Amino acid sequence: MKKTIFFILFTCLQISILAQTPSVQRINPSNWWVGMKNPKLQLLVYGKNIAGSEVKINYQGVTLEKVNQVENPNYLFLDLNIASNTQAGQMFIELSKTIKVQKGKKSIVDQMVKITYPFQLKVRDQKPQEINSKDFIYLILPDRFSNGDPNNDKFADMADLASDRKNPFLRHGGDLLGVQNHLDYIKELGATTIWLNPVVENNQPQTNEGGAMRSAYHGYGFTDHYNVDKRLGGNEAYKKLIEAAHAKGLKIIQDAVYNHVGINHWILKDLPMKNWLNQWDTYTNTSYRDEPVVDILHGSAADFKVQQNGWFVAFLPDLNHKNEFVANFLIQHALWTVENFGIDGWRIDTYQYNDLNFMNRCNAALVEEYPKMFITGENSVQSAYSQAYFAKNNLNVPFKSTLPSANDFVLFNAINDALNQGFDWGKGFNRLYSTLAMDALYEDANLNMTFLDNHDMDRFYSVIGEDFNKYKLGVGFLLTTRGVPHLYYGTENLTKNFKNPSDAEVRKDFEGGWADDKVNKFLSSGRTEKENEAFDFVKKLANYRKTSEAITEGKLTQFLPQDGIYVYFRYTNNQSVMVIMSQNKEDKNLDTQRFVERISGFTSAKNIMTDSSVGDLKSLKIPAMSITILELQK
Amino acid sequence: MKKTIFFILFTCLQISILAQTPSVQRINPSNWWVGMKNPKLQLLVYGKNIAGSEVKINYQGVTLEKVNQVENPNYLFLDLNIASNTQAGQMFIELSKTIKVQKGKKSIVDQMVKITYPFQLKVRDQKPQEINSKDFIYLILPDRFSNGDPNNDKFADMADLASDRKNPFLRHGGDLLGVQNHLDYIKELGATTIWLNPVVENNQPQTNEGGAMRSAYHGYGFTDHYNVDKRLGGNEAYKKLIEAAHAKGLKIIQDAVYNHVGINHWILKDLPMKNWLNQWDTYTNTSYRDEPVVDILHGSAADFKVQQNGWFVAFLPDLNHKNEFVANFLIQHALWTVENFGIDGWRIDTYQYNDLNFMNRCNAALVEEYPKMFITGENSVQSAYSQAYFAKNNLNVPFKSTLPSANDFVLFNAINDALNQGFDWGKGFNRLYSTLAMDALYEDANLNMTFLDNHDMDRFYSVIGEDFNKYKLGVGFLLTTRGVPHLYYGTENLTKNFKNPSDAEVRKDFEGGWADDKVNKFLSSGRTEKENEAFDFVKKLANYRKTSEAITEGKLTQFLPQDGIYVYFRYTNNQSVMVIMSQNKEDKNLDTQRFVERISGFTSAKNIMTDSSVGDLKSLKIPAMSITILELQK
Repeated sequence: MKKTIFFILFTCLQISILAQTPSVQRINPSNWWVGMKNPKLQLLVYGKNIAGSEVKINYQGVTLEKVNQVENPNYLFLDLNIASNTQAGQMFIELSKTIKVQKGKKSIVDQMVKITYPFQLKVRDQKPQEINSKDFIYLILPDRFSNGDPNNDKFADMADLASDRKNPFLRHGGDLLGVQNHLDYIKELGATTIWLNPVVENNQPQTNEGGAMRSAYHGYGFTDHYNVDKRLGGNEAYKKLIEAAHAKGLKIIQDAVYNHVGINHWILKDLPMKNWLNQWDTYTNTSYRDEPVVDILHGSAADFKVQQNGWFVAFLPDLNHKNEFVANFLIQHALWTVENFGIDGWRIDTYQYNDLNFMNRCNAALVEEYPKMFITGENSVQSAYSQAYFAKNNLNVPFKSTLPSANDFVLFNAINDALNQGFDWGKGFNRLYSTLAMDALYEDANLNMTFLDNHDMDRFYSVIGEDFNKYKLGVGFLLTTRGVPHLYYGTENLTKNFKNPSDAEVRKDFEGGWADDKVNKFLSSGRTEKENEAFDFVKKLANYRKTSEAITEGKLTQFLPQDGIYVYFRYTNNQSVMVIMSQNKEDKNLDTQRFVERISGFTSAKNIMTDSSVGDLKSLKIPAMSITILELQK
Repeated sequence: MKKTIFFILFTCLQISILAQTPSVQRINPSNWWVGMKNPKLQLLVYGKNIAGSEVKINYQGVTLEKVNQVENPNYLFLDLNIASNTQAGQMFIELSKTIKVQKGKKSIVDQMVKITYPFQLKVRDQKPQEINSKDFIYLILPDRFSNGDPNNDKFADMADLASDRKNPFLRHGGDLLGVQNHLDYIKELGATTIWLNPVVENNQPQTNEGGAMRSAYHGYGFTDHYNVDKRLGGNEAYKKLIEAAHAKGLKIIQDAVYNHVGINHWILKDLPMKNWLNQWDTYTNTSYRDEPVVDILHGSAADFKVQQNGWFVAFLPDLNHKNEFVANFLIQHALWTVENFGIDGWRIDTYQYNDLNFMNRCNAALVEEYPKMFITGENSVQSAYSQAYFAKNNLNVPFKSTLPSANDFVLFNAINDALNQGFDWGKGFNRLYSTLAMDALYEDANLNMTFLDNHDMDRFYSVIGEDFNKYKLGVGFLLTTRGVPHLYYGTENLTKNFKNPSDAEVRKDFEGGWADDKVNKFLSSGRTEKENEAFDFVKKLANYRKTSEAITEGKLTQFLPQDGIYVYFRYTNNQSVMVIMSQNKEDKNLDTQRFVERISGFTSAKNIMTDSSVGDLKSLKIPAMSITILELQK
């Protein structure tokens, strides 16, 4: 935690101070910028007994519009307006309060205490890069990827003192420098963007879940929004990582958590007001169900309240977004993060549990400052209707979401079924076809973030029974269908496991990320032959994808799966790619007459995975359980 | 087939007539009405060599706007305009044609042939009654319900000479008089409306399906739109049935088939033009898949064409709705049917296989003349999105359907799952809850036609493993949730069977409908104790439903199923009904605190199935596998 700098000037130093003496311990945001499109800024000022202070800001262009006093006298919320022509620089926030002091032994007199707090207004210099379907995202759980700096694994002043790689539930020491050290690896794989599970400070105590003590290594329990966890390297390491990534042409997505904070968040020790949190008389968990929110005709108010205001888990207190101060605090933190670190996009955790009007405001605030900001929301839902409801959609419903991108759980489920079910009516590859057939529900399904697994899921390679043909089908589909694909770290080297007995099973360390690892899977020499085959498959296709306007920007036309074969085309005026997936147990000859609308005019093709040529498109030999990706040629 | 009346006037009777002599065999529609909102009428005139005729109509208010000649010289299509002030009466359509006739042995001379065809313009007198969620529909397959007139079972001049109750695939002799004879039974059951599988003439030959010869007893292969099948009693029996039904307060829904006709349809013997049908070089079946139509972003043109223009089966030729003459023929037949017989609503067969722009025109034409016409479309689909797409919906998509009501196959599937799956995440009663949670997709889900089974489905009682508790849960849900419920004949007396080995298994004769039946299930004395319990359950609930504004017009609020129990409320300002469904194997006590938003203000209730009182609403004893329906009282 950064030390705040403050000066307390006493008009009379020899007097003893009574209990109500004010002080300032923290102002959030920790700084701001001139030239923001939105001139408003609400500063949270935290300090003992500051309620009742007179506040002054004397800085050209900055107007203090309102001083908000709240339930807790240790807070003030200052509404500022920063005129568009304001110059960058250091302004001072002055708080003056008259307090009672004891003078000598008998008399109590009024004394003025004045606190002057410096606050930086900086020049904006961040321009987030656009993230869209041209990108391929690599998801990393920072604690489990690579330990770049063994000196920051644990700190005596933090609530959780453990760091132990042998225990799957504790921190393992992975950090941002570890990520930075492997940017070339990520780039080699063909990824363009890195999504990190949350990096914000999680100064959480260990919690007991299912009988085992666990650390908050996953990062979803923030304890100070304005500090990156120092076990990951802190704010400086994050800045360096982002600069290094940008220098290599890689973009960064930050994981936002608006729904809740960690139970050790500093503000919980001394809440500004009771309704900063969604409070219940007795502990109430969310239902984890989307329907109470999307069932706008029949949903009950009670179920809606539990879904929205129920806590995600007991150690993650639920923020009340209907409280304007909370909403401003979170929105400003999002803006601050982009401007301070230069991140390029956002993934929003547990989207559906947030107040949706708040989320709309938050998205709009980001888009106002950064018009093409990529924002993708996590919604594990029961239906495509529901998934669309939470994002920008083509539904005539009163609530219009401003979320540009849905995490595509509906397609994720379809991929699982496609690869694990036999070919039948509504099963197997028909699940892919039928799911994409609903894309008109979304304003732009090509912005949906697609995936095979993530940190909360069974590992893809295990789900498909460690079947390498299915692996290629899954990865091949992911990288050629519509959407913004992401891969979970390790999937490229066939990392496996089910969540049983716990999530930790799917969050194992990337081998080679620690100095004492015997095997280094960042290098081909450290991977088995099969793992290299997997890595090379992802690498070849992802790097081809980068260059393919058909796959990344083109239209998609899909054909009804028949005879165990699913065929689709990605195409622009300049390029056509034909993808043929077979779930048959035997090789088949595919008559292409049916695809004439997309194949007409082409006479040959290049198999982009084998680099071989296909001289005759009229009939194609399709191997059993395979994906064939052909760039068509005239 | 009605004999057409026509006069041929020869100007010179002694001459012999050459091959091109015209005649008129048929005009469709067979009559029309004055005072229609749409003044347009297109008459199909069929007769040998009538092309080239001069056509005159001399009738006050009627203008012949255009005479359309088509490929086949045996057809003319006359575009008429009937002014709004036209009087009813008989008009004459005069066709004059100069033909070559042989005079004496050597000379050929021109002669004028004139045909005068009478055509009735009648006074409109039908006012269809509104069908909506206040109704409860009883579905009858006319050949299998009751044989009112054994003299019309077969006719020597029809293509299919068989009538044999012992053979499940042949006609059994059921008819419209049989239905009429049991209107009191239907009314006693609590139904308000009868939907009959198609009654239009099916003068089809027997077909060979799966190795067995079968009759077109199901009615889906029309051979003359303007005649009700005489084995059902013909047009007169249909009129009498409808009059009798209306007199008893029952309404009639007709089953429309626009997609195809029977292979013996008269027009197929001498097509007006080749593209009257959707023609293929080699026989092409439809894919039976909805996605090629609803996948407006990615669907292929080839799959769309197969879905739309492929034939439903080989003996049901597919009509080309893009042909304006076909479209007019079908739309006018729909209007003629309402006006001629006085039916109250339409169920449209195989809706998704019809050209949707044609269907929109057809729906609009009906609604133009009968503003509240109930029209419900059959769409066995893969998703709620798709089901909504084909009906009036809340989707921002370029195609806007005008279909008021979807046959709710999505809810049908959910009911099956609800009763056959254990209670779990996304399973069991959660399927009901989750399905209704998507109702915002529809413009008015309360117009969806809901059902447990129909003539194409395994019988409900078999699907639920002949479990009587599940039976009451299914029927109870059907009659208390949103929508317009229908019951398939026999479900009220626990009729069972799977479609294996054929559809005929679920289309068995209603016992008691034939004079020689040993058992009469129209009477309580003919039903077993269990069958009476089933009948009485339907009867009691359906008759309560009739009187309940809460169930038929009220809002629905549903609560997230918990602990195997699903609770919902139907309510208006005047009435509240609470429904509690349990899929638990044991009795449970239900704390009602969670439902306070809907239960507040009520202190007691009446159990409408048992007529018992519930004095305390705070905790309810819920029996295992049961449905409890409570009318709340203050």
